[in-house]
Amino acid sequence: MDSIRVHRDSISVVDQSLLPDRMVWLKLSSLGDFAKAIGSMKVRGAPLIGIVGAFGIALAAKRSKATSKGALLEELARAASLLLSTRPTGKNLSWALQRVLDSARSAKGLEEARRAAVRTARAILEEDELANRAIGKIGSRLVRNGESVLTHCNTGSLATGGYGTALGVIRAAWEGGKRVTVYATETRPLLQGSRLTCFELKRLGIPVKLIVDGAAGHVLSAGLVSKVFVGADRVLLSGHVINKVGTYPIAALAKENGVPFYVAAPTSTIDPETPVEKVSLEYRDASEVLTLQGRRIAPKGVAALNPAFDVTPPKFVSGIVTEKGVAYPPFRRSLKNLLEKPKRPVSA
Amino acid sequence: MDSIRVHRDSISVVDQSLLPDRMVWLKLSSLGDFAKAIGSMKVRGAPLIGIVGAFGIALAAKRSKATSKGALLEELARAASLLLSTRPTGKNLSWALQRVLDSARSAKGLEEARRAAVRTARAILEEDELANRAIGKIGSRLVRNGESVLTHCNTGSLATGGYGTALGVIRAAWEGGKRVTVYATETRPLLQGSRLTCFELKRLGIPVKLIVDGAAGHVLSAGLVSKVFVGADRVLLSGHVINKVGTYPIAALAKENGVPFYVAAPTSTIDPETPVEKVSLEYRDASEVLTLQGRRIAPKGVAALNPAFDVTPPKFVSGIVTEKGVAYPPFRRSLKNLLEKPKRPVSA
Repeated sequence: MDSIRVHRDSISVVDQSLLPDRMVWLKLSSLGDFAKAIGSMKVRGAPLIGIVGAFGIALAAKRSKATSKGALLEELARAASLLLSTRPTGKNLSWALQRVLDSARSAKGLEEARRAAVRTARAILEEDELANRAIGKIGSRLVRNGESVLTHCNTGSLATGGYGTALGVIRAAWEGGKRVTVYATETRPLLQGSRLTCFELKRLGIPVKLIVDGAAGHVLSAGLVSKVFVGADRVLLSGHVINKVGTYPIAALAKENGVPFYVAAPTSTIDPETPVEKVSLEYRDASEVLTLQGRRIAPKGVAALNPAFDVTPPKFVSGIVTEKGVAYPPFRRSLKNLLEKPKRPVSA
Repeated sequence: MDSIRVHRDSISVVDQSLLPDRMVWLKLSSLGDFAKAIGSMKVRGAPLIGIVGAFGIALAAKRSKATSKGALLEELARAASLLLSTRPTGKNLSWALQRVLDSARSAKGLEEARRAAVRTARAILEEDELANRAIGKIGSRLVRNGESVLTHCNTGSLATGGYGTALGVIRAAWEGGKRVTVYATETRPLLQGSRLTCFELKRLGIPVKLIVDGAAGHVLSAGLVSKVFVGADRVLLSGHVINKVGTYPIAALAKENGVPFYVAAPTSTIDPETPVEKVSLEYRDASEVLTLQGRRIAPKGVAALNPAFDVTPPKFVSGIVTEKGVAYPPFRRSLKNLLEKPKRPVSA
């Protein structure tokens, strides 16, 4: 289940807004193509957004008409700033853009700067899949045979450079011979749970039961699941987890019912600097709430509020699974330790 | 906004599954008509279900070919049991059916039993609207001018014999000159929030903002609302509140964020007998989750779990507004006191 293909002067990505009905590949080459694909959520999932963003400026570097490294760097900084404005909340996008910019800045001369940008984007893609496989391997130790787990939104191959984060944990447990049943929330407004998570789990042969978002509380209080695994768009050093709206209620109810709540994300999702009160939470267009797949479901003239994310405080988080290991509370120390650990993905 | 009209040998109810797109009145006369309308949720809302159920057996009494009061009572008991099986979780239905049966049982002779059944159904309808107006008046004292409140599902005129319970409180505050803004959850799977609550509030001119169910946590933690008002399908003497799935997460998050959580329901919703572990929670057909307004939104072959209700424990409930006053914790005592209070609806 590839979500991205890299070509010479463009990349192709699956239009995730059309799945599972249709599998359409979008070719992205101009900066506008990239901004539109990310902003419209045709491409989504924090790690994948980072990867696609990285290619957005790498390809801009490749075709730039700049005649000096300085001019190129200025052009790329503007491009990065445009891309970042399309989805400001996730950490992976700014992390990936910064990494590509840094590699170009460190390069010797204009041509080497172009090549460095492209090389870095490719490295980000490759490393993300490796990181996911490591997350899967490490996280799968937390899953018991026969267990039912709850997940929210989509955190599979489609959301990443490959394999998946929270869904990667579930998949690794399954591939390691453990029987797992997944309760998947549909994840309104854009239904990443019903459209994408169910689609991926079905292809993998992993049993899944779809529930509406409001039913997560009942599923937890009725003892139908014994663990929760979700992804993240940004993890603060304090352990605050910014993820798809609806995550915070699940985390609070998991705690209330004694069900461990795990976050699975690569270290590129960790933000070591921003305090929680400075995180910019994206509000998306009301039309996503007022319609479903293009069809109006509320009376005309009604207003809607559409926060794309919410913030889960660290007190509800049992552990954060990264490719370098699991961080446990207190997170400020454990996440810092993980970040300082040398990069050495567990071999898959 | 009437939801029910009473005729000589039938009643008409609004088909709530078609709102707000179309306003279609369904005529119900046979017992099968009643069972189907309630079971399919074309008629919904705990108080309205009770009222419609009462007319279901009252009209069965009216047209019964029974030649003795004993035979009539047996027939009505069977009819009541059929109706009850269509929506077993709400208290109002069993309460209303029992009240009609009791009135027929206490009557002198066959003909008087028929008349008593019809009289009782009419009384239940009239009293429900009076109770709602009293709930509105009493509950509106809890609403401050300029406040934003959160509600879930639909608890307006459409859900009741008229005026509404939780929405009745909001409406009474508004009609009393208080500015209120309502955040309404869409309430998947059947979208009573977006389809019905937004529709009713818009007609009343009360400002409303629609959110997806998963966004309730963010709305509470971001301080966008300062009170929650919901209805109930069954309130236990312990203070456990059984209501539309998704209520429990809202209640837990309200508590977590210091936002008072109020339940508005007539005393006919209070169940003084059943302990929480004996409450039968209805699971509805998976197709409601897998489709939206008849259109499939998940891949074929995916299973779904569709609990219609959840249970909110009393520790999350700030107060229960009834037509006889507000019950505060500890509920076992305050609810018992309310039930023992003579019936004397506050004049509207």
